[in-house]
Amino acid sequence: MRPRLVLFGDSITEQSFESGGWGAALTDRFGRQARARSSLAADVVLRGLSGYNTRWALKVLPRAMEGAADAGADPAAITVFFGANDASLPDQVQAHQNVPLDEYQSNLRAICGYFKVNKLLSRDIYGVDDPLRQAERTNEAAGSYAQACIAVAKELGHPVIDIWTKMQEFPDWQTSALNDGLHFTPTGNKILFDEVVKTLASIGFSKESLPSDLPLFPEIDPKDPMKAFGA
Amino acid sequence: MRPRLVLFGDSITEQSFESGGWGAALTDRFGRQARARSSLAADVVLRGLSGYNTRWALKVLPRAMEGAADAGADPAAITVFFGANDASLPDQVQAHQNVPLDEYQSNLRAICGYFKVNKLLSRDIYGVDDPLRQAERTNEAAGSYAQACIAVAKELGHPVIDIWTKMQEFPDWQTSALNDGLHFTPTGNKILFDEVVKTLASIGFSKESLPSDLPLFPEIDPKDPMKAFGA
Repeated sequence: MRPRLVLFGDSITEQSFESGGWGAALTDRFGRQARARSSLAADVVLRGLSGYNTRWALKVLPRAMEGAADAGADPAAITVFFGANDASLPDQVQAHQNVPLDEYQSNLRAICGYFKVNKLLSRDIYGVDDPLRQAERTNEAAGSYAQACIAVAKELGHPVIDIWTKMQEFPDWQTSALNDGLHFTPTGNKILFDEVVKTLASIGFSKESLPSDLPLFPEIDPKDPMKAFGA
Repeated sequence: MRPRLVLFGDSITEQSFESGGWGAALTDRFGRQARARSSLAADVVLRGLSGYNTRWALKVLPRAMEGAADAGADPAAITVFFGANDASLPDQVQAHQNVPLDEYQSNLRAICGYFKVNKLLSRDIYGVDDPLRQAERTNEAAGSYAQACIAVAKELGHPVIDIWTKMQEFPDWQTSALNDGLHFTPTGNKILFDEVVKTLASIGFSKESLPSDLPLFPEIDPKDPMKAFGA
């Protein structure tokens, strides 16, 4: 069975197949790389839930994972990318999205625990945290949630990307990487994509390590094409 | 189980998750549309095989469909998009990719037959044909293969897109829609994407007809968020 990479998160994940999106770029990279003469292939499965916080994500987890990470589907890696909504300020109009910091951490533990307990992962779970900056949000609140997420990932021994810090290393990141203070521009998508690829490689999910797929075109002998297919 | 849309074809399919690609755009459209307040969700599965003709595709069909369209996976629709390589001129250096017109048609029948016989589809198979224009290819040869593909689709009662004709309706299509005479520019991707969406709708695969998914953010009551989750 072809390895599967599941993208689980909020709108930043849901929108990751827009033009220039990090989810589409992962599919392009891992779907099949004939031109790179690498024969790996992995399916990328989108499970993005706009507006969701970790409390709601936890509530729908088994249903959200149907066909993505359930008994019949054993994903090689899962990105868990929540926090932008949890970090909504509790005294603003979107207060119902807010999840207190300690519950955010325990929800992350429970989400990761679900995958472990149900033996749904053949490798370590892989988590990312997220940046935000909107009227309903502040960069400082986002930073607290990012740190809280990183702490849980370290506690559980999962790889984690500090995209909150990483993104702020780029010039004019507020406008070059984010298009509304929260969602990603193509540049923001590229920053995250590069980090995800690096982090996946660190857990052995890379072009070089994935199992080989069907014969690539350059491997097909023009003089005897059918040989490549064992015929 | 979430409906599945499988994209099966050659490099035009394999590259469909590049920036602006038609495969990524389908994922963006059908993956989840919270902003459109539609609760559909479908998984898009990529099975692109660069350089392959129908003869080789047929040879690897069961392996290519592992995890995409096999016993455990019942796709709602499959795009079958081959012909660009079959139509390679038989007297040029890539002659080993050429498949004669009558074999091309019988291979298309066999590919569709495989899905039917194995009861892998809950709806009609959906096919597209393809345009091409390279040193190894001519637009005229491509046109013959397009017509041959359309004939098979009509014979089998499958929806089909005449993208060869459609694309030539656009101004400067040779350079605006194609980037190397064969593969698609973002404009070419958009032309195909629009046709695919229209054709999928014609077989009942649309934002309106897909089964509902998890509660959308706008459906969640700020005063009682958990109600939406049945808790």
